[in-house]
Amino acid sequence: MSLSTGTRGETVPTVPPVSPAADTADTHAADGVDVGALLERGRTLSTPVLRAAVDRLASPMDTVAAYHFGWIDAQGRPSDADGGKAVRPALALLSAEAAGAAPEVGVPGAVAVELVHNFSLLHDDLMDGDEQRRHRDTVWKVHGPAQAILVGDALFALANEVLLEIGTVEAGRATRRLTTASRRLIDGQAQDISYEHRERVTVEECLEMEGNKTGALLACAVSIGAVLGGADDRTADTLEAYGYHLGLAFQAVDDLLGIWGDPESTGKQTWSDLRQRKKSLPVVAALADGGEAGRRLGELLAADAKSNDFDSFSEEEFALRAALIEEAGGREWTSQEARRQHAVAVEALDDVDLPARVRAQLVALADFVVVRRR
Amino acid sequence: MSLSTGTRGETVPTVPPVSPAADTADTHAADGVDVGALLERGRTLSTPVLRAAVDRLASPMDTVAAYHFGWIDAQGRPSDADGGKAVRPALALLSAEAAGAAPEVGVPGAVAVELVHNFSLLHDDLMDGDEQRRHRDTVWKVHGPAQAILVGDALFALANEVLLEIGTVEAGRATRRLTTASRRLIDGQAQDISYEHRERVTVEECLEMEGNKTGALLACAVSIGAVLGGADDRTADTLEAYGYHLGLAFQAVDDLLGIWGDPESTGKQTWSDLRQRKKSLPVVAALADGGEAGRRLGELLAADAKSNDFDSFSEEEFALRAALIEEAGGREWTSQEARRQHAVAVEALDDVDLPARVRAQLVALADFVVVRRR
Repeated sequence: MSLSTGTRGETVPTVPPVSPAADTADTHAADGVDVGALLERGRTLSTPVLRAAVDRLASPMDTVAAYHFGWIDAQGRPSDADGGKAVRPALALLSAEAAGAAPEVGVPGAVAVELVHNFSLLHDDLMDGDEQRRHRDTVWKVHGPAQAILVGDALFALANEVLLEIGTVEAGRATRRLTTASRRLIDGQAQDISYEHRERVTVEECLEMEGNKTGALLACAVSIGAVLGGADDRTADTLEAYGYHLGLAFQAVDDLLGIWGDPESTGKQTWSDLRQRKKSLPVVAALADGGEAGRRLGELLAADAKSNDFDSFSEEEFALRAALIEEAGGREWTSQEARRQHAVAVEALDDVDLPARVRAQLVALADFVVVRRR
Repeated sequence: MSLSTGTRGETVPTVPPVSPAADTADTHAADGVDVGALLERGRTLSTPVLRAAVDRLASPMDTVAAYHFGWIDAQGRPSDADGGKAVRPALALLSAEAAGAAPEVGVPGAVAVELVHNFSLLHDDLMDGDEQRRHRDTVWKVHGPAQAILVGDALFALANEVLLEIGTVEAGRATRRLTTASRRLIDGQAQDISYEHRERVTVEECLEMEGNKTGALLACAVSIGAVLGGADDRTADTLEAYGYHLGLAFQAVDDLLGIWGDPESTGKQTWSDLRQRKKSLPVVAALADGGEAGRRLGELLAADAKSNDFDSFSEEEFALRAALIEEAGGREWTSQEARRQHAVAVEALDDVDLPARVRAQLVALADFVVVRRR
C-alpha cells in the first residue's frame, strides 16, 4: 500500500497507457522530461539531510532506522538496499519550484514527508504482520515490535522537528499541513484495518480510506515545498488536489499489484492483499457487481471471515478468488479508476499558474507513477 | 513511570516532608495555596477541549481513546474512572499566568501536553506488556495491540494539530518545544528498554533516561503556557528548569513506589519495576554501592537476566531483591535524590521574575507532587 514499495520491474498489463510517451521503456517522456533525473535529484538532495536527521536519534533507534531505510543490513554492515523510487522527495522539490523558489527550499519538506511516510510503514508493517518490505525482513521481524513502535514514533517526531527548526511563519504553515496529512494517514490505516473485519465495504468507503491513507500525504508532498517557498493557500490547495488524485491513481495501481502483482517485482507474497483480507478497490468493486461472480465472491469471503483454515489456504484458493474478482469486473474497474484519477490530477494543474517546465514535469511524474511502474 | 499513575492513597514513608505543610492531610499548604483547587481548575478548563479534540478521531479510535482516558468503560458505557491527578494541565495554566497571561491562554498547551503524555502511555504499556493502568485493563489488553499503536499515533498527531491551528508565531514556538520534549520522551523510553537488557547501568545514565522520559515533558508543561502567552525564551527556559527537576524528583518517588508501593494505591502489581527488570534509581544506586548487599544484588540480577524461570518467581524472590536494594542504600539514596531535585526545582524559580502568587502556587505544586502523593 505504499508508493515506494514497488520497483521498476512491476507490470500492470490491464492499465492502458495514458499517452504514447508512457509506453516507452526508458524514463524519458516524449515531451523531453527526464523522470529518472527528477527522481535522482530528489534522492540526492534529500538523503543527506534525512540521514543527518536520523543520526540524531538515541541508540539503538538510529541503527534500527538506518536498517529500515536500507543504509545498513541486519548485521549493521553498510548496505545499498532499494530505498524505493523516492517519488515524494521529487515532488516536494518540484513543489518549491512551482512557487518560483529554488528546489533546495523544498528539501526540509521532502525530508519531513519521507519521515512521516516511513513512520507509517514501520507501524503498519507491525499492525498488519507484514514480514517483508522491499525484499527485506521488516523492522519488527529483525529488531522486534518495541523497536518498530519506538522508531516509528521517533521518525514522526523528527518530521515536525525538521520543519519547525526552520523557525519561519512558512515552516509553521508547512508543519500544520503535514500534521493534517499525518492525521488523515492514521485515519486511513484505522479504516483499512476495520474494513478487514467487515463483510461489506462500499466503493465510496474504500476510496475515502485510500484518499486518507495514500492521497493525503502525497498531496502534502506536492504542496509542502511551495508553502516553504512562500506560496499562498490557494496555490497550495490546488497543488494538493493534483497530489491527492495522483495518490488515488497510484493506489488503484497498487491494489491491482496487491492481487495480481509478480512477487519478484513487488517484494511481497503472491495474492498479498487477499491473504490479508484487504477490502481493496478490485474486491469492493467486484462485490458491488450484481452478477453471479460477484455473488459467489461475496459468499466465499463471508465464509473466509469465519474460517479457521484461512491461514493455510493453498495458492489455488486465492487464485479462485482472484479469478472471481476479475470475472465480476473488479480488475477492469480499478484499471479505469486509475486512469480517471490520473486525468483529474493532471486537470487540477490547470487551476494554478505554473512555470511551463514545472507543469510538464508534474505531468510526466504522474504518467510515470501511475502507468509506467514496470 | 507516570505522573498520573498514582492516586492519593500512595505512601512514600522514607521521603521526609520538605515543609510542615507537606505533612498535612488535605491539599491546603501552609502558605494558603489550595493545590486541590489548582488541579481542579486544570481539569475543568482542559477536559472539554481534550474531549473535543479526541472526538475528531475516526471510528473506532475515538472510542478507544475515550476508554483510555476513562470516559467510557470497556463496554462503551459512560464512566468516570480515575484519569490521573492532572498535574500537567494545572502546570500549563500556571505557566500562562507566569507570563502575565490569563490561565485560559495555557489551555491548548495543557491539552497538547496531555495528548503527548497519553500517546506515550498507550505505546509504553504495549511495549512493556503492562496489563493494568489506573486500576483498569490497558488499551492493548482490551482493544488489541493495533489499536494501542494507532490511537497513540493519532493522539501524538492531534497534539501538534491543537497547537498549530492557533496559527500564531507563539503557537509555532510552543509546538517546537513540544516536539523537542516528545523526542526526548521517546529517547527516554528507548533508553529505559535498552537498560532492561543491560547488566550495569550507571546512576548518571539512569538520571539521563529519567530526565528524558519524565523531566522533558513536565518541563514543557511548565513553559508551554508561558510561550503561548508571549514569554521570551529565557523565561521559558527557566520555567523548564523548574519543571525538569520537578520531573526528576517525581520520578525518584515513582521509582520508590515501583518497588515498595502498595498495589492497592499504585494500581500496579507488587514489585512492579522489579518484575519488569527496570534499572530504576534504587536499583542502580544499590548496584553502585561497594558493599556486600550491592554485590549480592548484582549477582542475583545477572542470574535473573539468564533465567528461564523469572516469570514464575515467587513474591519471596522479589522481596529478597527489594531487601538487598534497601540494605545497599538504594532506597535511602533515592529518597534523598527526590529531595535534592525538589530543592533544585524550587531554586530555579528565583531566576525568573514571577508574580508572587504564581510562585507560591508552583512551589506548593512541587511539594504536592513530590512529597504528598498519598
